[in-house]
Amino acid sequence: MTLPLIAVTMGDAAGVGPEVTVAACLDPEVLARCRPVVIGDAGRLRQALTIMGLAADVDVVAEPAQAEPGPGHIAVVDLGGVPDNLPWGQLSAAAGEAAYRYIERAATLASARQVAAICTAPINKAAIKLAGHNFPGHTELLAHLTGTPEVSMMLATDQLRVIHVTTHVGLADAIAQLEPGRVYRTIKRGHEALARAGLTPRIGVCAVNPHAGENGLFGHGEEERQIAPGVAQAEADGIDVKGPLPADSLFYLAVRGDFDLVVAMYHDQGHCPIKVLGFEAGVNITVGLPVIRTSVDHGTAFDIAGRGLVNPSSMIEAMRQATLLAAAV
Amino acid sequence: MTLPLIAVTMGDAAGVGPEVTVAACLDPEVLARCRPVVIGDAGRLRQALTIMGLAADVDVVAEPAQAEPGPGHIAVVDLGGVPDNLPWGQLSAAAGEAAYRYIERAATLASARQVAAICTAPINKAAIKLAGHNFPGHTELLAHLTGTPEVSMMLATDQLRVIHVTTHVGLADAIAQLEPGRVYRTIKRGHEALARAGLTPRIGVCAVNPHAGENGLFGHGEEERQIAPGVAQAEADGIDVKGPLPADSLFYLAVRGDFDLVVAMYHDQGHCPIKVLGFEAGVNITVGLPVIRTSVDHGTAFDIAGRGLVNPSSMIEAMRQATLLAAAV
Repeated sequence: MTLPLIAVTMGDAAGVGPEVTVAACLDPEVLARCRPVVIGDAGRLRQALTIMGLAADVDVVAEPAQAEPGPGHIAVVDLGGVPDNLPWGQLSAAAGEAAYRYIERAATLASARQVAAICTAPINKAAIKLAGHNFPGHTELLAHLTGTPEVSMMLATDQLRVIHVTTHVGLADAIAQLEPGRVYRTIKRGHEALARAGLTPRIGVCAVNPHAGENGLFGHGEEERQIAPGVAQAEADGIDVKGPLPADSLFYLAVRGDFDLVVAMYHDQGHCPIKVLGFEAGVNITVGLPVIRTSVDHGTAFDIAGRGLVNPSSMIEAMRQATLLAAAV
Repeated sequence: MTLPLIAVTMGDAAGVGPEVTVAACLDPEVLARCRPVVIGDAGRLRQALTIMGLAADVDVVAEPAQAEPGPGHIAVVDLGGVPDNLPWGQLSAAAGEAAYRYIERAATLASARQVAAICTAPINKAAIKLAGHNFPGHTELLAHLTGTPEVSMMLATDQLRVIHVTTHVGLADAIAQLEPGRVYRTIKRGHEALARAGLTPRIGVCAVNPHAGENGLFGHGEEERQIAPGVAQAEADGIDVKGPLPADSLFYLAVRGDFDLVVAMYHDQGHCPIKVLGFEAGVNITVGLPVIRTSVDHGTAFDIAGRGLVNPSSMIEAMRQATLLAAAV
């Protein structure tokens, strides 16, 4: 059996991306499951190997199919773009432009089925913007590159998975944007992603008000008007889904094992509980794209970049999840 | 040294209150730290002992100073009010009225310094309402009974403490209610409670929008207008406080040990992260009352009441916290 090819974008070259990329690509568990091929800059990867105290050849390949990664070997589609003397931990348009092009190429490769999935190291939004591209993050950029109108952000750790109905929008606007169709589509996307990975997921949907509104005592009927009809529609499709439930109880029950997926109404509702459970091993999965994409659940960490201090466990977990989802397609 | 007297209200007699009360009052760790005296119904406590498989005398005392609790002895100020055949797990006005009177007496005893603190077993809001009293919870009731205009709800586990600026109000209304004075007073109350317990607390304050508004990209400037001036005022008082910070990062840092207290802007922001960390051992502390009050962090659990199935660890932890805070006054 040939292991699936996973495109690993190196991220912002001034951040911790190159370091977590080389460490994850040489991890024995990762190599037992997939063939990683980095989309990035070969020179920067060699610098990162030295910094991380790792010994390996960086083999430049023209296309993923030629990659032969393994112990002591990292395969890279070398798009360059990183000056030899680029300082670590500093914002630069060059690194932003390079990071943008790595993602662009990965999306093309995935759309052409030359790789089974994409796993992304962190980018820096400000650097991407300096380079003249206006996207709040990977998710929106990949949606744009693949012509996808709506996607969902799922965060996953060993103990908890959360998918978000809204994400990068102010809290008051998030409440206003909630509507049954969007709730329904998010439940549906979450269900499909986990069903593809072999689960029959039990899904719980968060309320937006404390105690799910306490029978109309708190809030303005958001649960009844904006959430419940979407849940009912998903249930009518045969999905195992309950809600809207008081969010704090639901998260407790999910961690206890009563639910496989929590549907959060807004960014912090999903992010806060999952991050207290262990930030380093968290994975960010974009659900609804025509390509499978997972990501580290941390940023470029400019304050520690280039010093060999970063923990690569989230990147390793992201590659594991990418392989898991890809294998099941 | 005489151990401090702690008034333990038995809660709703049809719920798990009597069971967790007797178990906690006989816990050796609890008895090593304080002298618990139950405010409740002696007959119901005897029933609860049998259900929990515990052997002890229930000694009725006229006032807390006469209590001699210890191994095999539970002291109770017997206010009665519970019919012998009151069914477990069912809503009743009698149990609601009795629970109300236990709290009323505990507040009187604490105000008169006859006990050092109050620790409350769960009440049922609907039962309290059936009995003709209109209060959303213990916190509001104790504030009323002691003539306190504003209090804060703090939740604590071993790993995390959170104090809330708003609690039992819809999410959209909570955002609207945020203002610098209230943020300042909440920080101040949290600081005072922990300083009394011997800490020099490092406090982190949550933003309300994702990524703390991402420099104005998300939200409507709530951070700048409604939160930051309150943080600045607390800082000017010499309090070690930072924020508003992105909530998900802040919770992660707090659990890692970088902060002693998180200030949450709304109910679920604080409740969701703390409940995934371990619901059973969580404690609810009312901060800002003239009396110290802690509580179990669970409800009446009518579905398992009267069956000896409840885990008393939250009640034990609540009594430990009450003792800790009382000893430091």
